[in-house]
Amino acid sequence: MLVTDRFSLRTGGHCDMIDITPEVEGRLSRSGAREGTVTLFVPGSTAGITTIEYEPGLIADFKAMWERLAPSDIAYDHDRRWGDGNGYSHVRASLLGPSLAVPFAEGRLALGDWQQIVLVDFDNRPRSRQVVVQIAGQ
Amino acid sequence: MLVTDRFSLRTGGHCDMIDITPEVEGRLSRSGAREGTVTLFVPGSTAGITTIEYEPGLIADFKAMWERLAPSDIAYDHDRRWGDGNGYSHVRASLLGPSLAVPFAEGRLALGDWQQIVLVDFDNRPRSRQVVVQIAGQ
Amino acid sequence: MLVTDRFSLRTGGHCDMIDITPEVEGRLSRSGAREGTVTLFVPGSTAGITTIEYEPGLIADFKAMWERLAPSDIAYDHDRRWGDGNGYSHVRASLLGPSLAVPFAEGRLALGDWQQIVLVDFDNRPRSRQVVVQIAGQ
Repeated sequence: MLVTDRFSLRTGGHCDMIDITPEVEGRLSRSGAREGTVTLFVPGSTAGITTIEYEPGLIADFKAMWERLAPSDIAYDHDRRWGDGNGYSHVRASLLGPSLAVPFAEGRLALGDWQQIVLVDFDNRPRSRQVVVQIAGQ
Repeated sequence: MLVTDRFSLRTGGHCDMIDITPEVEGRLSRSGAREGTVTLFVPGSTAGITTIEYEPGLIADFKAMWERLAPSDIAYDHDRRWGDGNGYSHVRASLLGPSLAVPFAEGRLALGDWQQIVLVDFDNRPRSRQVVVQIAGQ
Repeated sequence: MLVTDRFSLRTGGHCDMIDITPEVEGRLSRSGAREGTVTLFVPGSTAGITTIEYEPGLIADFKAMWERLAPSDIAYDHDRRWGDGNGYSHVRASLLGPSLAVPFAEGRLALGDWQQIVLVDFDNRPRSRQVVVQIAGQ
């Protein structure tokens, strides 16, 4: 079984983190697949996907880490060339990565009890995003 | 062919890095699959999976890098809210990621000669971990 | 359908970033597969794969970020033991990761319009690299 689908969501940008676990679980459930892998992918070069314990403290801590790794207030060549002001968004997204593979068995994702799948939008403005969800299995 | 399995291991926490390549290779060999992808996933939000040349120097260097990226001795909102003291563990795990896909062909993983698959436990105490190993191929 | 292939490329090392999207798209097109996932993997422990808007500004910005995360001019245990001088290359590669999964549907990769797949060679010298391309789908 192979199902490729997309869903849309709106983000606030600025490291906004959205819990997409319910969307992914809903699609897995409706697919009827019992065992396989869900591959998630966000098209675009200023967002990424990972997992986290989705609670307000860590959402803030994660954002603070990115200010250390790729500060928003230093000069970027990208901004000098294109004037977008989001050079930091791009390098953050490249480091985090646009893709995540989550195995499932007996119809359930292999997530831990306190582990959610999140989209992180690093861009410097609100965005409309699409997430590709591909379910491969049986 | 699709096989989903788990194995357990104990870690020391504190950036402990365990070479899980032999476990993965053993399972691949026993599956009889010749070509496909092994997807590895660690349930939980304070551990990650990647590859490295597994030798004591780099194990120390990798740990030292994480102290720069997400220091263990600064304040985290997560700790203020929950008192776990492992806010740094969570954000490190989210950055590294819980998942790795390794293709194989002719029954062999596509690893380089000096490249091992490792579990990294960022938590602030010893932990018992499970790793999901899914072999999809033919 | 399952096709596992490799291609070779030469890099300059030193964070050299190569756009491998045309190679991947060409192989996908020739495979005839319409829907599935392309899994990319670089054997070796001093290179990684991700996506980025491939333009000179961001290529420079990405390199500058790595100098902050894992500076090339500090001491690494790896270098003290082995004398390779590329301890920073190893830890960078482990953080970025050797692998990327990109779903495709209707014969097209799920990339954004300004999002390319890149190999990043962190080593401290020019290298010849192989990239494994596995196409699984129908």
